Amino acid sequence: MHQLIREMFHKAFGSSPDAHDSAVLKIPQNKIAFTTDSFVVRPLFFPGGDIGSLSIHGTVNDLAMSGAEPLWLTASFIIEEGLPMETLWKIVSSMARAAESAKVKIVTGDTKVVERGHGDGIYINTAGVGVLHHDLHIHPHSVRAGDIILLSGDVGRHGMAVMSSRESLEFETTIQSDSAPVAAPVLDLLKAGLNLHCLRDCTRGGLITTLNEIASSANLSFEIHESAIPIQPEVQGACEMLGLDPFYVANEGAFVIFVAEKEAKLALEILKSHIQTAQACQIGQVLEDGVAPVLIKNTLGTRRIAPVLSGEQLPRIC
Amino acid sequence: MHQLIREMFHKAFGSSPDAHDSAVLKIPQNKIAFTTDSFVVRPLFFPGGDIGSLSIHGTVNDLAMSGAEPLWLTASFIIEEGLPMETLWKIVSSMARAAESAKVKIVTGDTKVVERGHGDGIYINTAGVGVLHHDLHIHPHSVRAGDIILLSGDVGRHGMAVMSSRESLEFETTIQSDSAPVAAPVLDLLKAGLNLHCLRDCTRGGLITTLNEIASSANLSFEIHESAIPIQPEVQGACEMLGLDPFYVANEGAFVIFVAEKEAKLALEILKSHIQTAQACQIGQVLEDGVAPVLIKNTLGTRRIAPVLSGEQLPRIC
Repeated sequence: MHQLIREMFHKAFGSSPDAHDSAVLKIPQNKIAFTTDSFVVRPLFFPGGDIGSLSIHGTVNDLAMSGAEPLWLTASFIIEEGLPMETLWKIVSSMARAAESAKVKIVTGDTKVVERGHGDGIYINTAGVGVLHHDLHIHPHSVRAGDIILLSGDVGRHGMAVMSSRESLEFETTIQSDSAPVAAPVLDLLKAGLNLHCLRDCTRGGLITTLNEIASSANLSFEIHESAIPIQPEVQGACEMLGLDPFYVANEGAFVIFVAEKEAKLALEILKSHIQTAQACQIGQVLEDGVAPVLIKNTLGTRRIAPVLSGEQLPRIC
Repeated sequence: MHQLIREMFHKAFGSSPDAHDSAVLKIPQNKIAFTTDSFVVRPLFFPGGDIGSLSIHGTVNDLAMSGAEPLWLTASFIIEEGLPMETLWKIVSSMARAAESAKVKIVTGDTKVVERGHGDGIYINTAGVGVLHHDLHIHPHSVRAGDIILLSGDVGRHGMAVMSSRESLEFETTIQSDSAPVAAPVLDLLKAGLNLHCLRDCTRGGLITTLNEIASSANLSFEIHESAIPIQPEVQGACEMLGLDPFYVANEGAFVIFVAEKEAKLALEILKSHIQTAQACQIGQVLEDGVAPVLIKNTLGTRRIAPVLSGEQLPRIC
């Protein structure tokens, strides 16, 4: 079986992720970003993606959020006995396609097999290394009062796509995950010389959890305009049916960008020129101070506090 | 629970491996080694180690086998609901201690929780980045006929320690795993200017499988002296009881070194000066050509072919 898996990986990735050796890599910069994520999403396939493409996009995007150019990935698999080889091949092929489109190379990896009943088909871990071509400190600590908050696109799609698929919910239109690599627009923002203060993808806990994390870390308050946040009508509908708030539902492509007010227009133009971030918009601003980390202003001008949810978030979403 | 885990990791590693961001790292060289391994060992604790220390040693040693100085690790956890927090803390503390003694820093990480019955307590993935301070091509392709084959210490201990513990076998003396970081002796060999041709740890499939892999890749034959390979008597005894060949049992510290004949003496001296490799010895030589990749010569001078085992190896050993 190990032999079979090795051959499959060799065919898909052009290198054997089961090799004992480390990959030796020549890096063009002396500052790197290094990250990892494990993926346990259930079901393995959902509208708009699968555990394979997700495992590539997740790590590529984590690197992009540091302002790094993603270069190399490792891929490590924990496979439950009985996983059909056809399923594994579909996942591995999807990873290879996702890696190619994100312009990263899977350079090494590992495979472990566990007995039936000790896994859930497959768990994937990817780690990534990227290089930084700039000296910006892209971090919540660089966020300043007056900064404009941009959002790269509509929210709530990934979580609802997985949930609908898991619970076999039928809506008029199938909700597609927003899972996509977003390094290209981020690198374009940096190439234009924009002084990005902070970037973060709105994954676990969705947009509002992400904003709360940044606000707490920056020790500042954000005012968000509810009507400015794009949500697809079918996502809104599905959330209403299930009693979920789309602002707290996980995304896998949507991210927030903090820039000085004078740079917001150019940043938006650049984002809109990329297909992944064509719907980018301004959703709010960083306040001098405030009563709570995140305030949401509705169309009537009323403001409410948007806290971190303390209850259970959707499990096994990535 | 996520909050609790985050705090635990922060306390153990001094940084939160659950941070969304990548770690940004300044590297002192322009050539890096990058590797990953997932760990699914069962039981989680065994004589001489646990899944935590193993996950550090495994990745540190993979980097060392490329001749890299291990610097940074990521740690990613898939935790089964119901794992006692005390167990998690023991594992995480063991990782922190292992990382400290191996002089690596855990810079970022990730945690996923799966439902009861969809894991096995805990699975750990570590990825590692190290830097190369030399221009050697440490690889089977650099092995030459006439090279001396050195072994860093006795074999068979890790696999037998895990097996004995899993099957609750009692021997007169408890067999301790050889799990240990071996970067320090390797870096010393390089510092002495030795032209190392190939290094490889004898993990999955043990010493003979490792030698077969290198021989096949190098397209050469190795002659190994059976009596030169150190094995602890209790490991030999346990293997006889279970019908296993210690030369095929997994190790987590033992590794082989290929050097030119004129450099073997100095290499051995350096290895012997380190506690992890104090038992290092010469076990064989690379032949001009041969009838099989690996030949074992016994004390009577008879040679037999030592093939790759085609059957099932011990499962869940790392």
